[in-house]
Amino acid sequence: MRLATIRVHDGVTRAAVHRGSDWILLGALDIGQLIASDDWRSRAQRALTDRKSIRIPISHAELLRPVAKPTKIVCCGLNYRDHIAETGRDVPAYPTLFAKFSDTLADPEAAIVVQGSEKVDWEAELAVIVGADAHRLDPEEAGAAILGYTVANDISMRDWQARTLQWFQGKAWDGTTPVGPSIVTSDEISPADGLVIRASIGEELVQHSNTRELVFDGAHLVSYVSQFTRLSPGDMILTGTPGGVGMGRTPQRWLADGDLLTTSIEGIGEIRNTIRIVPENLSRPEIRR
Amino acid sequence: MRLATIRVHDGVTRAAVHRGSDWILLGALDIGQLIASDDWRSRAQRALTDRKSIRIPISHAELLRPVAKPTKIVCCGLNYRDHIAETGRDVPAYPTLFAKFSDTLADPEAAIVVQGSEKVDWEAELAVIVGADAHRLDPEEAGAAILGYTVANDISMRDWQARTLQWFQGKAWDGTTPVGPSIVTSDEISPADGLVIRASIGEELVQHSNTRELVFDGAHLVSYVSQFTRLSPGDMILTGTPGGVGMGRTPQRWLADGDLLTTSIEGIGEIRNTIRIVPENLSRPEIRR
Repeated sequence: MRLATIRVHDGVTRAAVHRGSDWILLGALDIGQLIASDDWRSRAQRALTDRKSIRIPISHAELLRPVAKPTKIVCCGLNYRDHIAETGRDVPAYPTLFAKFSDTLADPEAAIVVQGSEKVDWEAELAVIVGADAHRLDPEEAGAAILGYTVANDISMRDWQARTLQWFQGKAWDGTTPVGPSIVTSDEISPADGLVIRASIGEELVQHSNTRELVFDGAHLVSYVSQFTRLSPGDMILTGTPGGVGMGRTPQRWLADGDLLTTSIEGIGEIRNTIRIVPENLSRPEIRR
Repeated sequence: MRLATIRVHDGVTRAAVHRGSDWILLGALDIGQLIASDDWRSRAQRALTDRKSIRIPISHAELLRPVAKPTKIVCCGLNYRDHIAETGRDVPAYPTLFAKFSDTLADPEAAIVVQGSEKVDWEAELAVIVGADAHRLDPEEAGAAILGYTVANDISMRDWQARTLQWFQGKAWDGTTPVGPSIVTSDEISPADGLVIRASIGEELVQHSNTRELVFDGAHLVSYVSQFTRLSPGDMILTGTPGGVGMGRTPQRWLADGDLLTTSIEGIGEIRNTIRIVPENLSRPEIRR
């Protein structure tokens, strides 16, 4: 199945499942709420075959990030073999992990507004969506706990990221990690078999790799994280980015105001985000109590 | 004011405000819910003077972590001048930040259960509780947005922390960061004036410093974090630990099964946590769907 969250009116959203040229609306506000109920698969199947289901043509649908507010977002760095090789490092024994907030996420077509950084970089990533409670699972069990996959871009403020040893402050800016456009369930797609992953700025291809280059795949990452923290349906793991980021170029290159950043994974879809760089001192909202 | 969350029955909690030898119950489930309403101060003042308020003697009250589920928990490392001096480093220009989940928190008298780490270390910390929406505030505004202060211990799994460059995986284990016992509001206490902070294992004092040694105080940390992510009432900033952790000793020392870890800050209070080290292979829960 292919699952999405759709804006149906201003401020009103609905979960949906794909059929042909339509999205079929489901009785949940987003995919996070949908998969929180145990019987969501049978409900989605019923909606797919019910002639009275409400359909929205794909061409008319505005897709939002599939899970509005994941409880936990864990990100992995240094996870593509080709990228590790080009940096001269050894393949790591353990995944390098850091966290984001749900506020860090943005919709798949959202403008990404950054105020206060001059080194805004791109990181095309495969995102794993957890579909079951996961606590101390082995990789096989963890694979069965994966709902599916979507596309993300871990847009990173390299000036802030490089200020200290911990990357977090360059990675957790509100509204800077676009996710979507939809989730393809894990019974229909297998990143280990090889999906092309790409990022482009305007017409220029800047990242081009394949998910089979992942050192730690979704099942291993869910298993590893679940050893120390319980994961729940809707939680998300970003699996790291391949080579081709701006920081690694000579000379280094950063996203500019007005750039259109397109991120795609074969068989999943594409997200398109215009970058807005706001001068640091433009305005500062007052404290609200 | 001094604010706490109290267990009143099995599974039922209430926010409370301190008066004399009692806790006065308030109409909220925890301090997070209490301070989410704008008029909480006048409600608490009314409860303090209302002779019909329900009182629980301090000696009978079981205190829980004051905010059950903060939306954002940001932690600062390398933030005590005395500790930085003893490691031979320079005073940093920027705070070193990482995140925890609300699941990482534990109650002030909870047993801390760790399965899968052999290097469990202590980190006594002052915790700052945010009391207002905070977005791109300067330090003075940020100081006004602080609700108050409580005690925490950022218990760290050093074997996992040292596996990669990013500390997160040693810092985000479920139920391992005890917080409490209560919040002293910022109009009544000033860490910059100097509060003694201590950790003990059993009767042995292992950390002993003063909050005036903080490089980045609560106001500066709230201001800094608010530049990239909006903070809300109940969000928490852990301000880092002074010298004396087990990792920095010769020989290194780790918490053992049965150890009683006591963490205290002058004028705020004390949390007491028994450490339980569970063998790695004891049991592994099955996947739940």
